[in-house]
Amino acid sequence: MAKPSSRGCLIIIGGREDRRSSGQILQEISRRARGGRLVLVTLATEQPDKIAREYRRAFSALGVKLFHLGVRNRNRVAQVDTGLLRRAKVILFSGGDQLKLTSELGGTPLCDSIRELYVHGATLAGTSSGASAMSDTMIVSGRGEKSPDTNSLPRMAPGLAFIQDVVIDQHFAERGRIGRLIAVIAENPRVLGIGIDEDTAVVLENGQLSVIGSGGVYVVDGRSVTYSNVADHNDTVISAFNVTVHLLSDSDRFDIAKRVPIASSEVRRKAS
Amino acid sequence: MAKPSSRGCLIIIGGREDRRSSGQILQEISRRARGGRLVLVTLATEQPDKIAREYRRAFSALGVKLFHLGVRNRNRVAQVDTGLLRRAKVILFSGGDQLKLTSELGGTPLCDSIRELYVHGATLAGTSSGASAMSDTMIVSGRGEKSPDTNSLPRMAPGLAFIQDVVIDQHFAERGRIGRLIAVIAENPRVLGIGIDEDTAVVLENGQLSVIGSGGVYVVDGRSVTYSNVADHNDTVISAFNVTVHLLSDSDRFDIAKRVPIASSEVRRKAS
Repeated sequence: MAKPSSRGCLIIIGGREDRRSSGQILQEISRRARGGRLVLVTLATEQPDKIAREYRRAFSALGVKLFHLGVRNRNRVAQVDTGLLRRAKVILFSGGDQLKLTSELGGTPLCDSIRELYVHGATLAGTSSGASAMSDTMIVSGRGEKSPDTNSLPRMAPGLAFIQDVVIDQHFAERGRIGRLIAVIAENPRVLGIGIDEDTAVVLENGQLSVIGSGGVYVVDGRSVTYSNVADHNDTVISAFNVTVHLLSDSDRFDIAKRVPIASSEVRRKAS
Repeated sequence: MAKPSSRGCLIIIGGREDRRSSGQILQEISRRARGGRLVLVTLATEQPDKIAREYRRAFSALGVKLFHLGVRNRNRVAQVDTGLLRRAKVILFSGGDQLKLTSELGGTPLCDSIRELYVHGATLAGTSSGASAMSDTMIVSGRGEKSPDTNSLPRMAPGLAFIQDVVIDQHFAERGRIGRLIAVIAENPRVLGIGIDEDTAVVLENGQLSVIGSGGVYVVDGRSVTYSNVADHNDTVISAFNVTVHLLSDSDRFDIAKRVPIASSEVRRKAS
């Protein structure tokens, strides 16, 4: 769950969000960036300038000026004056390769400053690889569209740890990733699996996540699991019995500490 | 569940099973066909002869002679002498289009004879479309690789009803179909969802299913569901909370009446 000390917000996006100014997710980001700075980090991608142009166009139409932090490697990251983050209200991590993002950014003063910002109330947003990298342990690779076997479990690596005890997967329905997420939560049912479709995001604040966007979010809770063969280390496909899956859509919420979903209708009722 | 009166067996295959004589699923079929006839029904496909050649080659290497029932439409089906089924121990339904299979075969004396055979102990096997068509209600279409919304729920139609109260989906991990199967079980949690990967089958006998093959089987039990928006009829993606999912692999079993999974290790322990 989010460190209780954090007053900030995470916007964790399943990739391929609508990048027109009418896009619901970009609107949410711009709402939170107003009156401050929106900083785009493109360390994950090989096409930083192209991506920056796309985002700049959309956010400019939404009245938000984007600052593109175009550094491309760890040496340059070390030279960044962290003072440029002073007015930042949102840091947005692009997609690309999550290992590139964590290997270039992890353990640098810039990364510490970003975490500090988040603790004090800023929003960190990440899409695709930028979404995966937000948790303490992240999925690096693992074929979707095939149920994994116990000898080909998803590869994992340490993430940026803005959020603990969850594992995030993206492009979720589009790339048929339920099998690999079940495999990960079977490895350790302590972690909560969160699979996010494209053009869909979870907004995480105060220990509650709220869904926005055009797709679904699959919350995979392994605490109910009664059996798995994940430690068998053979060529058998993963077995995992009694996995609890919540499929959430726009405006549904989920209480991460209690692991309880809240329907959008219930959210509206409470608000009225 | 299987009609309690049936002494037969269903082999429900997720498509693209290994069609070499070394293939585990074809071996299971041939084991059950020995000493009798294996009849192949290709009504679902546009390429009946090609498919018959493939199967004939494999089964011949396994010592089983295949009889290809090559009729291609309802009029011809009506003329089939059902006596040819007399020595049949296995009927195998090819893949193709499940609506073609049910519309050409449903309600014919041949279909009644096949059901009769099954009730008296024969094995009915079906792959891909031939698998989907086995239940009383079957999925006809519905995009995988995208979480369905309440205005684009999977299209369904009456199946051949060799098994009741389940809905079968095939090519499951390969085509990312967890979303559409959750949608179907949310429509009516009475039915049990069974999603079968390619080159994987469930063998259903005496109310218990047993998994064989190289992939996984996703059993989706909606009885635990506490909320869904499936009847909202709007453009929102499906929400369904507290779905129970069992991921089964080779030699795992599932008791359909009790809705309880049984691990392969447990199966072996009981047998020894």
